Formats: sequence, C-alpha cells, structure tokens
Amino acid sequence: MTENVEEAVEHRRLIIAGTGIAGLTAAIYAGRSNNEPLVLEGDEPGGQLTLTTEVDNYPGFPEGISGPELVNNMKEQAQRFGAELDHGIVVDVTPLGEVDGTDGSPFRVEMRDGDVYTCDAFIAASGASARTLGVPGEDELMGYGLSTCATCDGAFFRGEDMLVVGGGDAAMEEANFLTKFADTVYIAHRRDEFRAEDYWIDRIMDKVDDGDVEILWNTELTEIHGDPDEGIDHASLVRHPDGHPKEKFEAGDDSVETFEMDVGAVFYAIGHTPNTDYLDDTGVELDDEGYIITEGGRGGGQTATGVPGLFGAGDVVDHHYQQAVTAAGMGSEAALDADDWLEQRERAGELGVDAAPEPAAGDD
Amino acid sequence: MTENVEEAVEHRRLIIAGTGIAGLTAAIYAGRSNNEPLVLEGDEPGGQLTLTTEVDNYPGFPEGISGPELVNNMKEQAQRFGAELDHGIVVDVTPLGEVDGTDGSPFRVEMRDGDVYTCDAFIAASGASARTLGVPGEDELMGYGLSTCATCDGAFFRGEDMLVVGGGDAAMEEANFLTKFADTVYIAHRRDEFRAEDYWIDRIMDKVDDGDVEILWNTELTEIHGDPDEGIDHASLVRHPDGHPKEKFEAGDDSVETFEMDVGAVFYAIGHTPNTDYLDDTGVELDDEGYIITEGGRGGGQTATGVPGLFGAGDVVDHHYQQAVTAAGMGSEAALDADDWLEQRERAGELGVDAAPEPAAGDD
Repeated sequence: MTENVEEAVEHRRLIIAGTGIAGLTAAIYAGRSNNEPLVLEGDEPGGQLTLTTEVDNYPGFPEGISGPELVNNMKEQAQRFGAELDHGIVVDVTPLGEVDGTDGSPFRVEMRDGDVYTCDAFIAASGASARTLGVPGEDELMGYGLSTCATCDGAFFRGEDMLVVGGGDAAMEEANFLTKFADTVYIAHRRDEFRAEDYWIDRIMDKVDDGDVEILWNTELTEIHGDPDEGIDHASLVRHPDGHPKEKFEAGDDSVETFEMDVGAVFYAIGHTPNTDYLDDTGVELDDEGYIITEGGRGGGQTATGVPGLFGAGDVVDHHYQQAVTAAGMGSEAALDADDWLEQRERAGELGVDAAPEPAAGDD
Repeated sequence: MTENVEEAVEHRRLIIAGTGIAGLTAAIYAGRSNNEPLVLEGDEPGGQLTLTTEVDNYPGFPEGISGPELVNNMKEQAQRFGAELDHGIVVDVTPLGEVDGTDGSPFRVEMRDGDVYTCDAFIAASGASARTLGVPGEDELMGYGLSTCATCDGAFFRGEDMLVVGGGDAAMEEANFLTKFADTVYIAHRRDEFRAEDYWIDRIMDKVDDGDVEILWNTELTEIHGDPDEGIDHASLVRHPDGHPKEKFEAGDDSVETFEMDVGAVFYAIGHTPNTDYLDDTGVELDDEGYIITEGGRGGGQTATGVPGLFGAGDVVDHHYQQAVTAAGMGSEAALDADDWLEQRERAGELGVDAAPEPAAGDD
C-alpha cells in the first residue's frame, strides 16, 4: 500500500467523478468552499444532458436552453470558482485509510491511462448509462442503425421509418424529436400505458393525430436484422393484449403475436444503469438496481455513503426523480457535505495520506 | 363542514403556497404535468432570493444572475406551462377528508381576503422569514435604521457606520455588500468563528485587511437606541472572550464587557424561521425549530408529509442546505410526488371534494 501512495501523481483534497449536472454543481460549490476540486470527465463528458436538444424544465430559462449549452455554462461557472476539469476516466477507487473502524478516506484513485491520484474526499457523480435489451443483432448494429441517442443520430436516417423502444419521458422526447426526420416513428412499449409526464404524452398524442407517430402498445422488440455496412433492414417484434409479450412468448404462450417491421433505425429509450463499477473496491453499498445508497433523511450529510469520505450525487444515486434540477440539488448537497466532513477531519488532525494508518505487514 | 365546501370560490387540483424558488419550480413541473396549479404568492413574493443582489452559485449562470431576475425567469417559465400565479396570502389550511384513516385531502384553503379554495393536493413552499433578536428598541426601529435586508436598505445609510449581526453566509454577504455604502461595517458574532462558506470568509477577510470591515468576535447586541424620526443613534453590546456573552451577562457573570457603539444602521442576518402558522390545523408534523418533517429517504415520495395530499419543499422543510438550487430540486420533487399521488387517488376514484367523507353530525 505504501507503493500505492508513492506512485500517486498528485494528492487532492477532493476529487469529483463526473461532469454531468450533479458533478458540475458539486464542482461549483466545492470551488467556492476552497476545496480546489479535481473533476474527472469520464467517458460521457457532460453527462446525459449533452444528448438532449432542448431542456425546458430546468428552472431559470423560461424559453428553454439546449443541454450542451447548460452543461457548458456550468463548466465555465465551476472553473470560475477554481475547479479543475480533466479528461481522465476513473477505473478504480480504493480506500487507503480507516475512519472509526470503517475503511475509507484517503482514497487511491486509478485512471485508465495509468495515472494515480490520492484524495481525502471523493464525490461519485458518475451518472447512469443507457440500458440495452440484449436481443440478437444488438451488439453488431449498435452505432450502425441502432442508437441510444435520437438527438445524436436521428438526422442520419432522414426519410426512413424509425422504431423507438420505451414508454417514459425519454422515449416520448426521442420519438417527438425523430418526427423531424422520420417518415413514421413507431413507439414499441411493452405495456398499454406510458409512464411519461403528461406534457410529453400530450405532445406525442398530437403527433399520433397528425399521422407522424404510431404507437405499438403491448409490444416488445426481439431481434434486429441487418449488418454494419447496410444498416438495419428490419426488426422482429412480439405483441400480446395483456402486455409484457416477450416473457409470455418465451414461456410458450401461443396467443403471442409475432411480426416483422421494415425500419431503417432503432432507438432505445429504456432507462439507464448507474455507473459504479469503479467503486467495487470501496465496498460502497448499492441497491438492487445498482444505485449508490446514501444516508438521505433530513439535515446535513444526506449524500454521505457508508464509506467515510465517499459521497454520491445525481443519477448514480437517484433511481426515481432523475431530473436535471434534482441532480443539481444533490450535487450542491454533496459538495457541502464533503466540505463539512473535510473540515471536521482537518480539525481532528486526521486528514491526508500521512494520517492513514499503516497497513498490516504483507498487506500487498 | 359542508358549508366550508359550498363557500369555496373554486376547487383546484393542486395549490402551491409560495413563489420562491421551491414554489416556482414546483409550479413549472406541476404545469407540465397538467395539474394546472394555483400558485399563491404570500407576503414575500419571490421569496428570499428577491432580497439578493447577485446569485453566483445557482448552476447555469456562469457570470451570476440577480435574484429578482432568476425569480422572474422562473415565474415566466411556470406561466408558460400553465401555472396560474395569484397574489393571495393563505391564512389557514384545513383537511376536509380522510385517507386511510388519516385526516388529509381534500383541503380547505382560506385566504386573508376571505376567499376560500378547496384542493386535492397542497404543496407548502412558504419558505422562511428573517429572525429577530427580541432586544429593546427592535420593534420601534425596524424599518427605521434596523433592517433584515442589506440589499434592500443599505443604500439609505450611505456614509454611516453600520452593524451586521450574524456569522453565516448571509451575514458575510450583507457585510460585504454594505461596504459599498458604509464608512465602516462592523460584524458582531457571538462566537469566535464564522460558520459561513470559505468563499465568503475570504472576501470578508480581504475587506478587513482593507479597513472596510471590523469583526467584533464573541459579541452580542443587547439594545438598539434611537427613534423612528431620527433613526438609530447607537447600540449596546456585550462581549466575553469565551463567546455567547449575553447569556453570561444575564447570569450575572461580571467578566462580561459591556459597551456602546455609534452606528447609523443595524442589519440582522441571524437566520430564518420557517413559515408554517397557516398549517396548524392540518396537524402536519414539525421539528423543534418549526421545519416541516417530510418523508425523505430514497425513491419517490420524499416530499410527502404525514398528512395525505400535503407536500413540503424548500426552506420550509430544509433546515440545513438552504441553497437556491436545493430548493429548486425539492420543488421539482414535490410536484412529481404530488402528481404521482393525484394520479393514484384518481385511479382509485377517490379524488375531489365529493369523495371526502361526510363529517360527523355537529362537527362544526
């Protein structure tokens, strides 16, 4: 472990993983608290909002603002208060110390390029990544007609029929956006009711009335056909009037209808998986879906985890609300919680790599 | 109770009390969810942020934005999505119904002007109001030299010595702002350490170096002298090296130093009291300081209270973080929670005044 510390390129008071809304808001606040945060971008810089054309519900912009513009504003704001943004991708976080008998701060933070940092506090704001279905054809065609980002890729398939899979806000937003380019946008949803905001449902129903969108209720995608050179040729789907047709089909229910559709592009909008692999060695507690469990409750320390010095904010924690403004709120809380924690540890004279206990002999 | 319902000028699906950041964000989201919220301004329209010149840490505005401008942006945004803003002040909320054995939705909402609304769900986003000390001279001189808002009143006392009471972010911000106008700004703080953000402490210490600010550590205000016509003449203070001098002075400790200061204005920045008087009849649970207790925790329903259909957001709930962006986050959560709750009740066919059980005979 001593080598781990000596190999470090730099010791930081606070490292923030993620430059989405939560990470950048944490960076703004941490900068103002003189914690000189190092903010690591990860492999989706700017987070999910950069994939959104127009953000209408982030409070403060009455005419809406584009996702990338909002993210860039926050970057600039964080840098103005002393945050340092870097392109690195964290692959592993390991506790080097122990606080009140629990492994935690300081942390060894290993980057994909081999660089190693140490830090006293760490805010995980690494968000969540688009989920996939695992159906045949998916791996070959991802990026060649199959996409998880309509706003990124929609324009490549101008004039084609397109299939959106999902039933939440994201599916509505993507389908709505794709009507600019598509001949017809089909939405396949495994139930007979969307879980999206009324605002989005209303807009989609208008598009249905206009003939631009067609909804395939109680329908699931089972295979995507095509090849990387030619793109998607068609898709296989299943339908059952009681919903969730795929599990019924796989159970041999012969009342499930199977059919093919000629579509030029398929867009997944079926939710996200929180990005926490790099935290495995911290032992931080996750829920059944993989979201980080934070203290929550009332008062300070809501973003603390069970690992001393490790805090969580944004979509890597929040499995329910998942709004830009809720991520921002939690980011601010995480920075304030981390600052309180750092100041307490500092007052107790227990901050920094030097304060970490010596590991038992033969520990590494 | 039947009369209560019949007297109502209007039944609304959702009423939001408060047009600060939390209330307006709730209004944006509730509008988008087609809940057509009625948003009642209360007696401090726009909330505390309207008293702030420059908001630097609300994410999305790299150069900062003025408090009133941010509030106006949010008002416009809420109205764009169908929220109705009204000037009324709520004086009383009474549960008319019962949900699973607990008094709650629908609610009777009585306004100061005598109007009465009923509603299915209610979001309390009524914020908190500036606290006072209760010292002699306070009542007579409030508004005549004594103020709880430097940005509102500072310019009236150009060239005078000014006294700021407090030790948190607000006190630092007010003192910093007052240096524009004051001869010298004195900050009286009852302890020997500020609890403000480092950012603010640093700025104040620069002003101390420049000779614009002088800090009176371990000092408390005991009386304000003057009259409404002439304003403040001077202030009486007590000091003790171990802090909290006033309680020591009142206990007869003769090592407490008493002294007078000639100041032309006094500004209180000693925290806030949550505005919840109008909720007395709901029986909603409050903590020791008067903040509304919400469910908190993880997942949905974090802003729910123990009163079915009553939700809380912003500074009337949050006794710790109290940031514009955390209030916004909670406002969004409250609107999403209220929408889920309303949809569930609607599906169960239990929404609206008609669904409320008949009160027992002689109930009113």
